[in-house]
This record gives sequence, C-alpha cells and structure tokens, in this order.
Amino acid sequence: MLHLTELTERLRSRDLTSRDLVDAALARIEASGREGPLIFRALDAERARETAEHVDRARAGGAALPPFAGIPVTVKDLFDMAGEVTRAGSRVLDDAAPAARDAPAVALLRRAGFIVIGRTNMTEFAYSGLGVNAHFGTPANPAAPGEIRIPGGSSSGAAVSVAAGMAPAALGTDTGGSCRIPAAFCGIVGFKPSSTRISRAGTVPLSRSLDSVGPLAGSVSCCARLDSVLSGGRGEDAAPAPAPGLRLGVVGNYVAEALDDAVGEAFGATLNRLRGAGVEIIPVSIPEFDEMPTLNAMGGIVGAEAFAWHRELLETHGGLYDPFVRARLEASRGMPAADYILLLEERERVRAQVAARMAGLDALAMPTVQILAPRLADLDTAERATQVNRLCLRNTSLANFLDVPAISIPCQDTGALPVGFMLMGRTGEDRKLLSVAAGLETLIRKPQRTLGRSLPSHASLTAGLAPVPQPVSRDNLMM
Amino acid sequence: MLHLTELTERLRSRDLTSRDLVDAALARIEASGREGPLIFRALDAERARETAEHVDRARAGGAALPPFAGIPVTVKDLFDMAGEVTRAGSRVLDDAAPAARDAPAVALLRRAGFIVIGRTNMTEFAYSGLGVNAHFGTPANPAAPGEIRIPGGSSSGAAVSVAAGMAPAALGTDTGGSCRIPAAFCGIVGFKPSSTRISRAGTVPLSRSLDSVGPLAGSVSCCARLDSVLSGGRGEDAAPAPAPGLRLGVVGNYVAEALDDAVGEAFGATLNRLRGAGVEIIPVSIPEFDEMPTLNAMGGIVGAEAFAWHRELLETHGGLYDPFVRARLEASRGMPAADYILLLEERERVRAQVAARMAGLDALAMPTVQILAPRLADLDTAERATQVNRLCLRNTSLANFLDVPAISIPCQDTGALPVGFMLMGRTGEDRKLLSVAAGLETLIRKPQRTLGRSLPSHASLTAGLAPVPQPVSRDNLMM
Repeated sequence: MLHLTELTERLRSRDLTSRDLVDAALARIEASGREGPLIFRALDAERARETAEHVDRARAGGAALPPFAGIPVTVKDLFDMAGEVTRAGSRVLDDAAPAARDAPAVALLRRAGFIVIGRTNMTEFAYSGLGVNAHFGTPANPAAPGEIRIPGGSSSGAAVSVAAGMAPAALGTDTGGSCRIPAAFCGIVGFKPSSTRISRAGTVPLSRSLDSVGPLAGSVSCCARLDSVLSGGRGEDAAPAPAPGLRLGVVGNYVAEALDDAVGEAFGATLNRLRGAGVEIIPVSIPEFDEMPTLNAMGGIVGAEAFAWHRELLETHGGLYDPFVRARLEASRGMPAADYILLLEERERVRAQVAARMAGLDALAMPTVQILAPRLADLDTAERATQVNRLCLRNTSLANFLDVPAISIPCQDTGALPVGFMLMGRTGEDRKLLSVAAGLETLIRKPQRTLGRSLPSHASLTAGLAPVPQPVSRDNLMM
Repeated sequence: MLHLTELTERLRSRDLTSRDLVDAALARIEASGREGPLIFRALDAERARETAEHVDRARAGGAALPPFAGIPVTVKDLFDMAGEVTRAGSRVLDDAAPAARDAPAVALLRRAGFIVIGRTNMTEFAYSGLGVNAHFGTPANPAAPGEIRIPGGSSSGAAVSVAAGMAPAALGTDTGGSCRIPAAFCGIVGFKPSSTRISRAGTVPLSRSLDSVGPLAGSVSCCARLDSVLSGGRGEDAAPAPAPGLRLGVVGNYVAEALDDAVGEAFGATLNRLRGAGVEIIPVSIPEFDEMPTLNAMGGIVGAEAFAWHRELLETHGGLYDPFVRARLEASRGMPAADYILLLEERERVRAQVAARMAGLDALAMPTVQILAPRLADLDTAERATQVNRLCLRNTSLANFLDVPAISIPCQDTGALPVGFMLMGRTGEDRKLLSVAAGLETLIRKPQRTLGRSLPSHASLTAGLAPVPQPVSRDNLMM
C-alpha cells in the first residue's frame, strides 16, 4: 500500500479511485486465504465499497471532501463501532449490547474521510504483547514468509493488515507496547502518543492509567497525519527536524540487557548511520529503569487496573477466558490497595526523575523489542509464553509507565527479520517527537528499503497479491 | 476579632496598628490560661510582634503594602513552615527534618501580608472529625462556656483560635469536613474549596484524592477574601448574590436521618427565613447519597490512601499513634487494590449523577453536622467516639467525595449552641458558591447575631479578654 501523502495526491488527481483502493484491500485479504479471518474478526466489505463509490462520485462532482476521503483503514476489535458488539478479541463479551455509537477515535477517522474496512484481531483484552489469540487464532507475521512467527500484539491484526498491504493505516491501542511491538515485529511504524492526547472513550479498557490510542502505518509521515486526525487536527504531517545536531540519549542498562544479537547489530548500525549524519548520540544512565521489575510486581499498575475491570466477569465468565490471559489477570487479585496507591506515587517520582535526566535531549533511543519475532511454535508452554511476553514488553512499557510518546521505526537490513528502532519523547510533546522521527526516518531505515520514494503505478496496486504469506499447515498452532 | 474588611480599613486609616492586633491576639491566648497550649502547638510571638512593628513602620512611612499587611492568622499543624518540623498533631513525626520552605498556601498568606502567630492543634494526622487529640489535649469549644464540649476537627485549634477571638482567620484543611465541622461546632464560617483550587503541596496528606486546603473565619466575606489569596488572587471579596430567586436544593434522605432536634429546628427555621426572603427552597432527592455507607466501607478512598501513606510509619512508629487513630488506619489495611480502583470509578459515576440532579440549582443546603458539639466526657469509649465521629463526617464528607466547594455558616438562636448551615456548590464554581453564601449570610444568621455590622472601638479589641472559657478541671478529659 502507498503512504497517505501519495494516496491523497493520487486520489485528488483522479489517478486512483477510492473504489480501486477498497477493492485492492479486499482482494488482498481474500488472497490471503486462511490468514484473512486470523487478521480480521469481521470485514465491512459491502459498506466499504458503497462508501468508496459515494466518495468517488462526490469527488468526480467536484465536492469538497475531507482530507483522507476514500482511504481504507482497519480498526482494532477494542473500539466501539455503532451497532456492533465490541468483543476485544474475546468470547467473554459475546452477550454485550452493541455499541450505541462509534468511539471518538473511530468517529474522527471517519470524519477525516477514512473508510473502515474491518475489525482486526488482537490479543484477548489486549493483555499480552505476543499477539497470540487462543480463541480466533494468531495471524502469521507477513515479514517472515515461509514460517510462522508471531506478529506481536496486542494490536496483531492491525499491524498485519498494514504490513500485508491490506490497508495503509490501522487504528490500535497501546498500554504496554501494543502498537509498537507488532509494528517492530512486522516491519512497519507504530506510534504511542501521550495517554490523554487521543480519546480512549469507547474502548474496552485494560488500564485506565496507561492505555493510549495510536496509529500503525507504513511511515512516520502516515503516523503523524493519523495522530493529527485522532487528536482533533486536520491531518497535518510533521515537519522533519534536520538531523544534524539532534541529540539522542542512548540508555545502556535495563533496555539492552537481554538483547538478541541481530537486534543489537541492527540497532548499533543504525546509531552509526545517525552519528554519521551528524546526530549526537549521547550515552545516558537511567537507573530508574532498573526498578521496573519491582514496580511491575504482581502485574503493576496495569495488572491492578485490569483485574479490577475484569473481576466481576471472571466470576461470571471465567471459563471463557484464554487460560494464559486469565492467569495474568488473576496474578493481580491479591494486590493490596496500599501497594497500588504507592505504585502510582512511585510512578510520579520516576517520571520526574527520568524527565530530569532527559533534559537537553531530543529523544531517547532504544530497540523497540530486544528480540526478533519468535516462532509461534516456540511459545508452546505458558512458562515460555510468559517469559517471551515479558521480554516483548520490557522496553516499550517504559513509555507507558512514563506517559511519554514513543514511536517504532524499522531499522533492519534488507531481507532480514524486522527490528524496531524506538524513539521516546516527553509527555505532551508528541508532535516534537514525530518531527524528530520524521527527520531521522530515512537514516533509521536502511537506504535501499526506504519506502514511498517512487510512486508505484496503478497496476502495481492490484497486481502484487501473490506474495501474501500462505503458511503450509498451522493446524497445531492455533493457540 | 473584627472581620478582614474592617481590619484592613482600620489599619489603612491608622485607627489601629498591626502591633495592636498582634498584641491583642497574644494577650487573648495568654488570658486563655491552660487552654492556650491546647489550641496552639506553638506560638511565634516574637517574630509576629517584630513583623507587626515592621509593617506599622512601613505603613507610617507611606509604603505600598500588600492587602492584608499586618493581620494575624493561625496555621494548622499540617502545613510546612520553613525551618519547623511539621508534626500533624502527632508524635510520630518528631524525628522528621524541618521543612525547607513554607507550604505554598502559607507562602501566599504571608505574601498577602498576613502574620502567622502560631501553629494550631488538630486531630492527629487529621484523621477524625472530633478534634480530639490524645497527645496534646483537646481544646474546649469556646461556644460552650462552663462545660467542656469538643470543638470538632480535625482543624480544632484553627476554629477555636478564631471563635475565641485570637485571630480573625485560620488556615485549615478539609478531607471529610475538617474545616466545616469545627466551624459549625464553634459558631464560625468554614470553607472547603474544590480540591485542586488551593495547592495542597507542603502538607502532610491524609487522602490525595480528597484533601483540600481551606480557610476558617468570622464571616463569608473573610473566607472569600482568604480563598482569593490562597488561590493566587488579590484577596477580593465575593459579590453577594441577590437572595430573591436563588434556588436552593434541600435533600431529604441521608443528610437528615439522624438529625438532632435542636439542629433540625435551627435548620428548618433558617429555611423559613430564606423562603420568606424570596429564596426558592426546592426538595431534591439524591438517592446516590444513600450509597455512601457502602462506598465508605473499610474507610473508603480516604482510608485506603491514608493507610498507604502511613503503612511504613505504622511499622516503625506504631506505638506512638493514638490507638483510636491507629485503629482507623488499620481498618483499611486489608482493602484490595481492585476495591479501591472500582471505588474511584464509582466516585466518578456518583459525581456525574449528582451533578445532573443539581442542574438548575444554585446550591444544595443541609445541616453541616447533624448533632450539636458533644461533650468531651461522652466520647469516653472508642465505640462511642467512632459512632459520633461517623455522625460528624456524615454530611460534610459528601462534598469531599463529590469534590465540590462547600461552606458552613452559623444559623442557631442567640445563646444556643452553634448549628452550621451548609451550602454545597459545583466543582470549580467556588466563587459562585461564595457569592451565593455572601448573599444569604445575613438571612442564615439570626438577625441579632449578625457580626461585623458595628465596628467595635479600639478599646474593645483588647478589653474583652474576660469571657475566654476557663474550664474548671479537665484533668480526666485529656484524650
């Protein structure tokens, strides 16, 4: 899929129609065969086609259209959409009433002209970074054709829908890394804003303190435009900050302790490219990060808040939960109120201390995830899944704890499994972080992989359907 | 003591000096004999006199002075004052480091010209509405001469310092009624603002969600001026709202269930006076108030947050706590995090529902406390103290739970024990509530008791020292 800037230009110049885009998206989903239902919990093909035709007619008639009129987008199963039951990747909410209205984030996307083509699969209740779903299956990571690696989560279907070219943009959420982990594993860009920047109303909450709503897309520019729409703006791009002189803090301790070799090499090579372009790479020590395991004991803030929301449902529908998710929720049952209250205070202390350490830096840089996307088959015990999940969340969850914006950009070699390069900014300075990311994006991506430089022909839009990964047999891997 | 408006006028016209005021205040404290140390944990007589003389010289020299230059004020033992240990009415913090700086509220008072004459006694850690202090004794209620009735709390010394004419204004805090209960029992005005209106920094917290900082003084006008100073303004008075046409909601259920006859009669007579003056008295039903006992189970939000703050101190200094206060704290030890989290959500639900029920009303009216100030001797068992404390907090704590401003104004017959008439407004609409209170004050107070109408002569300032209550013997009542 093209990026939003090119798509809006080509739609405006009538080089493409919205119906072309929607058809291409749906054809690509169709062509993915058995993967389709693992990526999407539901498609809205009929309405998407109708809306696209309506947009095309309006455009042909010279009507003033919203900025992204006619562009397909996917929405995570965590968001309310009027008339539909919000199931959050679970069977627990099957009896829930259909949503009375769209979640504000969805409504803003529609108002900006986006066409929702489907509801994407996710980790049950967003409570794991693996993207594994025991009820509805786990979509394969499209960046690893020929084998079945996890896509990362919890916004698994969201990331796959973009990485597999089924939509140029996806709406996700991020409580501990749920936009950025799957973006890193699937080789796309994922952005987590400051928590209150984008309305979280109309979503099934995981943690009211740490939830955030964010976009996944093919480029920093796409994420910046989506961030603008979702925060009430007009879809403006972020002006790229000139790379020379930017100051990036690189943390040595906690965030690099269990680093996979391939991730370490890609990250190090990226730092070298940045340094070569005049970016100042500044080693910083943030000892507060070493406190994270203590602060996350018994599930930490997320665990306490998630358990509180689920407590009654666990009584009435306990048997319907994925045992892995249920066990994570139950792990926080015994947390005393005092622990939780002191945890919130510790959070404020750590936030202030880290903010002070970030003085004079434009952003912190670290690998988004310390490992490559694991093979689904390697997560076959609860113990291993727990261990890998912890590793997936290790770096990303720092940004949620600090309530700062963070973005993951692919930085791996051509043909290699994706590696995410993460930039973390300051609370509320989301647009500044997006500008820094925009300024560094071409340096972070290996030059030959830079996307969106040449505009593919119209034909290439509908042509390239073949490469969608078609795993041979995965019957034993439906976890 | 005169009210602030008269005091500023008479200081400006040099009819009075600041030294007169400070001397009168200190003389009155001196004359109170054994009560003095029960009202004040510490006096700052020397510095107060020096500051007063400095102000007087500056005024005589024609210097531009802050609006309340030279007026005495008392400060509750819960506030940091530079160089002093903040003990919060306890022995537990004796080893704590002296405060590095004044709490912002204290600093604002000083910047407005007020002279702090002393640090007032309080319930240990502000955790009871009785105003009883097991360590430093309980000041007698000056409105009940000849017997020993409790002053109410937790801002016990604050209220007594004003009611006994030792200062025209006092700085207190209010987490469940701690400004308003002692104001009601002692026959003065106590104001609790919306929780974030006045900085709570530099205070020993009881409950971070419910704490608020507020003034106690002789009139609504004084409280309005203090509220302005404390919230960063210039000490403006509140313009009285014209009484005719004001709409007061009167709640029938929860807030009137255990009403003492004398309180009920004074409250009813006040409603009649208001009605006679054209105020609309509108019965409203607020069934959410009936949920309060459930929401306050295990100490509710206050209990959970108070226990969290004290948990470590209870380990290290448990033996130094008043057993009654310690038992209240311990009652919340077992609260699960999920209960607390759901409680915060219930609070938001109740706030929204009550706000909807208040649509079209200028304020809610109810008795501040359902009983008259009890005799200290009647609180001789923990059981009775617990029961009476619950009754003291019953109505006032609604405003903290709702996070709305509330003010208590005396409404009893001449010579009778004080009864507080409480008005509750809307979150953030503190000045509107003060205007309503200012407009109704002369109606709420029985006409012959209206204070501040005639300006006492200079002589009366220092003359009237005799009536300070001198309880005969209270040796057995030091609880």
